[in-house]
Amino acid sequence: MSADILDGKAFAATIRARVAGHVTRLKDSHGITPGLAVVLVGEDPASEVYVRNKGIATVETGMNSFEHKLPAETPEADLYALIDRLNADPAVHGILVQFPVPAHLSERDIVARIAPEKDVDGLSVINAGLLASGQNAMASCTPLGCLMLLRETLGDLTGKDAVVIGRSNLVGKPMAQLLLRDSCTVTIAHSRTKDLAETVRRADIVVAAVGRAQMVPGDWIKPGACVIDVGINRIPAPEKGEGKTRLVGDVDFASAREVAGHITPVPGGVGPLTIACLLANTVTACCRIHGLDEPEGLTA
Amino acid sequence: MSADILDGKAFAATIRARVAGHVTRLKDSHGITPGLAVVLVGEDPASEVYVRNKGIATVETGMNSFEHKLPAETPEADLYALIDRLNADPAVHGILVQFPVPAHLSERDIVARIAPEKDVDGLSVINAGLLASGQNAMASCTPLGCLMLLRETLGDLTGKDAVVIGRSNLVGKPMAQLLLRDSCTVTIAHSRTKDLAETVRRADIVVAAVGRAQMVPGDWIKPGACVIDVGINRIPAPEKGEGKTRLVGDVDFASAREVAGHITPVPGGVGPLTIACLLANTVTACCRIHGLDEPEGLTA
Repeated sequence: MSADILDGKAFAATIRARVAGHVTRLKDSHGITPGLAVVLVGEDPASEVYVRNKGIATVETGMNSFEHKLPAETPEADLYALIDRLNADPAVHGILVQFPVPAHLSERDIVARIAPEKDVDGLSVINAGLLASGQNAMASCTPLGCLMLLRETLGDLTGKDAVVIGRSNLVGKPMAQLLLRDSCTVTIAHSRTKDLAETVRRADIVVAAVGRAQMVPGDWIKPGACVIDVGINRIPAPEKGEGKTRLVGDVDFASAREVAGHITPVPGGVGPLTIACLLANTVTACCRIHGLDEPEGLTA
Repeated sequence: MSADILDGKAFAATIRARVAGHVTRLKDSHGITPGLAVVLVGEDPASEVYVRNKGIATVETGMNSFEHKLPAETPEADLYALIDRLNADPAVHGILVQFPVPAHLSERDIVARIAPEKDVDGLSVINAGLLASGQNAMASCTPLGCLMLLRETLGDLTGKDAVVIGRSNLVGKPMAQLLLRDSCTVTIAHSRTKDLAETVRRADIVVAAVGRAQMVPGDWIKPGACVIDVGINRIPAPEKGEGKTRLVGDVDFASAREVAGHITPVPGGVGPLTIACLLANTVTACCRIHGLDEPEGLTA
């Protein structure tokens, strides 16, 4: 039996359509247009592509996109002044500073400067604390996307045995919090776990977020389990020609798909969900700031 | 084989002795006396006993104890004004408002008002976020005490399979974070867990924090496991006479002690550690506020 391959691109489109629906309602019923401000410091070419894609996706869902491009040598004080203005701007509901930033700036301090309710990347200490204590938080976009995909695929997650491999602040730890909030029995495994194979083998849900190419083989997977692969690793692909490479996940897709019930591919699995969840978080932030109901189907 | 019964009272004395040692060094080397302020609103008799005991323990370790008793009808603004003064007072390194407070006051807002670095109960959202993101946090006292006891009993916890039963903000969730920080493989189980017996049976470390009398029987315990029982439940004890009661934990002590390697009794296990860890947190807060090294053996 071969697993159902979860199409992240298609599901991202579903999330964006939900976002667009909520944006239309916010405009029609409340005269509010959600707005996302993205700040880019410096000229990193990859970052410029990301920022452009975020801007396009934002506008496509009917929201306002505000782009702020600052020179690489921008002093901290000037960046903070901009963040303060965006914090106070009623047309802005989400603020994202594109990382990495130049070395003279502190990512941690930048995140702390953003108003927590507009921290749509969910990176601040306050949002981690709200998430950890079961309150309304902005959840970081990649784990939120994984959660939405799991709910879409499996329905109610209550009582499922979930194993999260990896304990990063960006993915592993918030993922565990989100699964716990949905009443999974959650195990957090990592490099120091004694018997990772056995731990993974118990799981109905496996979220791999370690950053080691193909480290989870198919024979670690419980038959029928749902496997979410957050890893994106570049490995040599001599079969494509000398010096060529390809992207693979943390899971060995070829062997795992023979055992799993559902599995995300890399690329095309979790990756496309991140920007969609950024848009979802912006709509959520907008609703909360205006004291409106949480937008259904978009929040943790 | 019968388990080693962990003497919480004796270990609490060890922690207090460590605290006293650090206090002496702070006085002798830096001319600093750590200070703990406890605020009591109203006249709940149990709370008055707790506050008095905290004050006695504080002074016994050589620290300054500041008690503030306010009438039950104290307006929120007056309580906040007091907290603001304590936040700004350089002689005060820890602030604790004794809960419960009268109904016109919000515990959540009170905790949020306390400066995070003086929140020695570790209850604030910011401290939950710092803990969840692996930064220097004030960890809530009961889970911190359990962690210290586990380290004292087992040494290095790296790679151990730990199961935390219960997902409360006060115990279960911070306990899981602390065990993860010490590189355990951590499973959080709860009322919706499918097969709790099987989940507990895998664990080298079991922390029970549910609040259901004797719900964990001995045959759920892996032989040799270390069992930490955070529950304190009052049950009828007809054998002591009509209408009499006794305290029991979440673990069935009689059967579990036959299997476990180590086990905490109730009472006399985890209970005494809480005040000791409050004192430990106050010394830690004092060191951090003054930019001194973390006090060894007292922090997460």
